[in-house]
Amino acid sequence: MKIALIQQKSYKIKQATIDKTVGYIQKASKNGAELIVLQELHQTEYFCQSEDTKFFEYASSWQDDIKFWSSIAKKYNIVLVTSLFEERTAGLYHNTAVVFDRDGSVAGKYRKMHIPDDPAFYEKFYFTEGDLGFEPIDTSIGRLGVLICWDQWYPEGARLMTLKGAEILIYPTAIGWFDEDSVEEKNRQLDSWITIQRSHAIANGVPVVSCNRVGFEKDSSEVLDGIRFWGNSFVCDPQGELIAHANHQEEIILYATIDKQRTKEVRNIWPFLRDRRIDRYGDLVKRYCD
Amino acid sequence: MKIALIQQKSYKIKQATIDKTVGYIQKASKNGAELIVLQELHQTEYFCQSEDTKFFEYASSWQDDIKFWSSIAKKYNIVLVTSLFEERTAGLYHNTAVVFDRDGSVAGKYRKMHIPDDPAFYEKFYFTEGDLGFEPIDTSIGRLGVLICWDQWYPEGARLMTLKGAEILIYPTAIGWFDEDSVEEKNRQLDSWITIQRSHAIANGVPVVSCNRVGFEKDSSEVLDGIRFWGNSFVCDPQGELIAHANHQEEIILYATIDKQRTKEVRNIWPFLRDRRIDRYGDLVKRYCD
Repeated sequence: MKIALIQQKSYKIKQATIDKTVGYIQKASKNGAELIVLQELHQTEYFCQSEDTKFFEYASSWQDDIKFWSSIAKKYNIVLVTSLFEERTAGLYHNTAVVFDRDGSVAGKYRKMHIPDDPAFYEKFYFTEGDLGFEPIDTSIGRLGVLICWDQWYPEGARLMTLKGAEILIYPTAIGWFDEDSVEEKNRQLDSWITIQRSHAIANGVPVVSCNRVGFEKDSSEVLDGIRFWGNSFVCDPQGELIAHANHQEEIILYATIDKQRTKEVRNIWPFLRDRRIDRYGDLVKRYCD
Repeated sequence: MKIALIQQKSYKIKQATIDKTVGYIQKASKNGAELIVLQELHQTEYFCQSEDTKFFEYASSWQDDIKFWSSIAKKYNIVLVTSLFEERTAGLYHNTAVVFDRDGSVAGKYRKMHIPDDPAFYEKFYFTEGDLGFEPIDTSIGRLGVLICWDQWYPEGARLMTLKGAEILIYPTAIGWFDEDSVEEKNRQLDSWITIQRSHAIANGVPVVSCNRVGFEKDSSEVLDGIRFWGNSFVCDPQGELIAHANHQEEIILYATIDKQRTKEVRNIWPFLRDRRIDRYGDLVKRYCD
């Protein structure tokens, strides 16, 4: 199965950004991609760099956004993983991945479960934590374990998706560097980010797909300079081996071929699911054991 | 805090192997190591390559082994992590790490919780799965999260040790290649093994210490050729960065300096423990959600 990840920049106008994305989708589908994954909050700039109620306006198009991306999935006959700003009701918003099947139907949605809150990543202001749990989404090309960005640091999310039959783990994401950090610190952060996601592939024997934003986006509040999104979108196989890897500065359609049979081979060699000590995992639902 | 890992070969005679180990301990303590970690089942060859009741004899010295390593810890004034074959009663054995404090006292023990069973790693024949749970061990130099080999593939074990306050995760281990595998497969296996353990450091914000066996050991049953233990013992910091890394073929004392303060810095930058969705982790205690 051929898949494509669209790693792209944000253009200042939403429509300009969407036009770019659709152009890439058209190209990727022409090149045979059956599954296309977009980056986190791909319709706009990463607005969570500051806390400003004006940005809730971006969620007002939620219903129209769904209609639009549905039409794109249908037009290009692809399974499409989008990442949208969900307005559930006034004052209640989610960071939500909506997955469309080839016929344009909504295959399912996932509301980001782990919400970060760091300088320039003020997501707890914008997004209520997801209440749909860690539930994979069934599509015509397989059962997809869609998670979002900060979720990628949590082995629990990846494991739960696997236990529920996810055949691929997919992370739309938006992560980057601050220019003032040292080269060493930047390398450490990027390497940690790749490593933790590859580890989910290894621990669970499933391929992992991570689609990240690229390019510099200024902090509109001017408190900080801005974020240089580090790209590096990648796909790894069920043993954690990188099979496709984008660079850190350019828009790109990253293609990969997923061999679903490989999961079975890898899990038969390394049967980690066989030996989990579920009788002694009870404390995992505690905040801390003090 | 200076630590040392002793990556070594097995010599055919137990006493010869132990003499080598003690020589390395003497040297490492002279060089200032306060914590010394030995590899899995360091007293003998890796006997689990075949299933033979004669090897249970190796566990008959369990009480004497404890006395001996206690005397070594005391003599060299070190905290010592050993990995022994525990005879609990006739027909009931464990793969057990015993940790000694500087005064020679037993600080605690950990019975391997996840037991593998693969061709040439027939551990389910020899070892009952541990029943002490994932409990860190308090010592004069800190609270140690000691786990063993196959445990290293399980994010659950690392997380539980962290939730119980472990300051360092320590894996005595014995893993290697089969010579008939391709170079590519060997590289994938080694890289996966390093990656999954580095991920435990990243997910939990703790340093990870992994001490592996090295050298070729023939399969005494002659069913398979044998295992070429891949060495590569390493230490990584709480961000997953490798700070010490041994090669794949030589005996070595691998030194590293652990900065316990670094955990706090890293966790304050990346506060993953803050955002765990413990309200939705309940299914982690299920074998599979079907």
